[in-house]
Amino acid sequence: MTDSTVRKTDSTEQSHKAHVLTLPLENAQADREPHSYERWLITKLMRMAGSPPVTFRLWNGELIEPEDQEAQFVLTLTDHKALYSLVANPNLAFGDLYAAGRLTIDGDLPDLMETLYRAVHNARQKWPKWLDALWKNHNPRATGIAEAKENIHHHYDLGNEFYQLWLDQAEMQYTCAYYEQPDLSLEQAQLAKLEHVCRKLRLKPGMTVVEAGCGWGGLARYMARHYGVTVHSYNISREQLTYAEQEAKKQGLDHLITYVEDDYRNIEGQYDAFVSVGMLEHVGKENFEALSELIKRSLKPDGIALLHSIGRNRPMLMNAWIEKRIFPGAYPPSIGEFMEICEHGDFSVLDVENLRLHYAQTLTHWLDRFNASEDEVADMYDAHFTRAWRLYLAGSIAAFRAGSLQLFQVVFTHGDNNQLPRSRADLYQSTAAPEEA
Amino acid sequence: MTDSTVRKTDSTEQSHKAHVLTLPLENAQADREPHSYERWLITKLMRMAGSPPVTFRLWNGELIEPEDQEAQFVLTLTDHKALYSLVANPNLAFGDLYAAGRLTIDGDLPDLMETLYRAVHNARQKWPKWLDALWKNHNPRATGIAEAKENIHHHYDLGNEFYQLWLDQAEMQYTCAYYEQPDLSLEQAQLAKLEHVCRKLRLKPGMTVVEAGCGWGGLARYMARHYGVTVHSYNISREQLTYAEQEAKKQGLDHLITYVEDDYRNIEGQYDAFVSVGMLEHVGKENFEALSELIKRSLKPDGIALLHSIGRNRPMLMNAWIEKRIFPGAYPPSIGEFMEICEHGDFSVLDVENLRLHYAQTLTHWLDRFNASEDEVADMYDAHFTRAWRLYLAGSIAAFRAGSLQLFQVVFTHGDNNQLPRSRADLYQSTAAPEEA
Repeated sequence: MTDSTVRKTDSTEQSHKAHVLTLPLENAQADREPHSYERWLITKLMRMAGSPPVTFRLWNGELIEPEDQEAQFVLTLTDHKALYSLVANPNLAFGDLYAAGRLTIDGDLPDLMETLYRAVHNARQKWPKWLDALWKNHNPRATGIAEAKENIHHHYDLGNEFYQLWLDQAEMQYTCAYYEQPDLSLEQAQLAKLEHVCRKLRLKPGMTVVEAGCGWGGLARYMARHYGVTVHSYNISREQLTYAEQEAKKQGLDHLITYVEDDYRNIEGQYDAFVSVGMLEHVGKENFEALSELIKRSLKPDGIALLHSIGRNRPMLMNAWIEKRIFPGAYPPSIGEFMEICEHGDFSVLDVENLRLHYAQTLTHWLDRFNASEDEVADMYDAHFTRAWRLYLAGSIAAFRAGSLQLFQVVFTHGDNNQLPRSRADLYQSTAAPEEA
Repeated sequence: MTDSTVRKTDSTEQSHKAHVLTLPLENAQADREPHSYERWLITKLMRMAGSPPVTFRLWNGELIEPEDQEAQFVLTLTDHKALYSLVANPNLAFGDLYAAGRLTIDGDLPDLMETLYRAVHNARQKWPKWLDALWKNHNPRATGIAEAKENIHHHYDLGNEFYQLWLDQAEMQYTCAYYEQPDLSLEQAQLAKLEHVCRKLRLKPGMTVVEAGCGWGGLARYMARHYGVTVHSYNISREQLTYAEQEAKKQGLDHLITYVEDDYRNIEGQYDAFVSVGMLEHVGKENFEALSELIKRSLKPDGIALLHSIGRNRPMLMNAWIEKRIFPGAYPPSIGEFMEICEHGDFSVLDVENLRLHYAQTLTHWLDRFNASEDEVADMYDAHFTRAWRLYLAGSIAAFRAGSLQLFQVVFTHGDNNQLPRSRADLYQSTAAPEEA
């Protein structure tokens, strides 16, 4: 059995009802028959996970149906050791087993993940303390200057060709888009995001902007192109910067943009705007005070800062598998934690917007394109990598849909700055998205 | 000498330069000559306060000019004991002495207060710890159900006639207005605030709303009148409720509105919206978890909550004089503290807006009207009360201008609610203020 249903069809249109197979597994490893306590363990595991509508299919083809409800998904374990990994550390093992092809899924992957997130979120309140400690415990990696370089290299230096397969063709935005209207294309929504950010910063021609973490440099080019500002953009991913510089040159914007290969902590100078889109997740709470001080000294007296970041409703560690396998060092802060940056710097928060469901939609577009390019991804890397990334994208859709992750844009300024926009009406005077993109 | 300059002219148009008088005080109490260490004490006090451009005029008419700058204001002390009160506890004594007529001011009162706030804010960082402890230390009153009734009675039951003298004539709003355009009248801006709140709540006809702390009931009437919703509004101020009920009846809205004379903690039922404008300041941090649980159980699964409150950039006690003499039990929270409400209830924050300078403008309108009605206020109460309230209004203007106080509107919903507005564009599709009011 494969998870071809997920792979080959558009995940948004697919039937949510799984086709429950009872045939023995193709390609299954030779394995012994399940023990009765293993069946009991699965029942127990499902209860601890809040009894989601999931059928378990064991390595011998045997089915364990959910209690008191019809199954919407089938999870197949290809060997008995997979079960023990799952029970011991479900957060980490679910992803590892899926990536290894030892846990396969019938049914829509984002839907399954959302169902699991919601079920576990509710069930977790009733876990005994020892289980909570066992299952939640992991230590995110450090985010000092040396580690940050490794952490970022791990993810962002996978190769521009890889990201070009499934990110937008407009500005290679690897952050939440802004679906001002529900039917925008990914390209339109990403450009709308850039426009929305520029409007929140109240950019005017001739202003200076510093950007901490610039990805492939799309925001800097958008700001230079549409607002005539001068931008200094910092990034520690060489792969991304090479692309960013080439694009700026190609578009004739290199006189306005300086891409700097350096850690954000080394930002120098004073600017009219400080912006960071999708970097705070990698900063780490232990560096919030330093970031606050950096923004304090980098922002002119009437300057505006905007941080755009994945966040939480309350403090919580990043999912262990995502943190270990996909985004080392990642930690999405709650607004309360975020406020350590603002309070430490005596900043005044002007505006917070939550774009949670916009990220679910962005990721759905990414996953569709990723699935469509799956063979190319497998050629670039291997099937393990492809499955891991599919799960990461699908799981992220689910996390935003289930409310496990949020997307905050926070705008703030120095506490004594009275040069403030009167209202937010100027953000909405015209649509942010271009008609075509 | 009197502070007639402040009283008789429009505070927004008045010259900022004080007319420094060197004549002996009229009506001064017979007092001994100042000692040389008293002069030294004043110089020291001014340094600790960040060297504002203030001349001190002593009880014998003698002037102590500020160092290295021209004075913009003159503070007169009518007796030597006033000086010792001021040095021992400036936060409390400044207001008490002003109210008693023992400290008088030449110059624009809000401007002076803003200058002092800014100077002290910067200087405070360098205070020795003992001074910080001496000057900042006070314990806000408790906010249990019994104390809350007393606290609220102290302020809000002063008499509707009193508040009618200087609040807007439209809906008696004693909270921050929304000056969508700079030249709105107080009435227009207050109605714009009500409209802005309704839009943020995404009210639709037939919905149900619960309001915690309703003042004179204006928001409830606005919601019923313009949005056709059913409202339950809680308040513990009898004076205010009597007015609210009469107005609702007069306007033929009493079939949609129930005003309940009870503590917000006794709210029952489930609603499409939970709203509270200007009550959180009186709730007290120790009650945030209970408030969170209350909102959790009062809000339907897809309901929206909005709290509108004075706040801070970082946790800080309320000014001692305001807390003791004007608003017993008041504590404006920082957003970080505010987030205890949201995190405890697993709420998702959708939107935060800071209307700080709108409150400075609201208060300026209030102060102008208050000053114009000063003789009536003095007839209702006495000169002491009149001076205290003038200082409270002027000091509040200053606190909002100097960034010492903020005004937050926070919109949130249950963490698992996906029935969310796509963007905030709907808040800005038309002006919120009526053309006339």
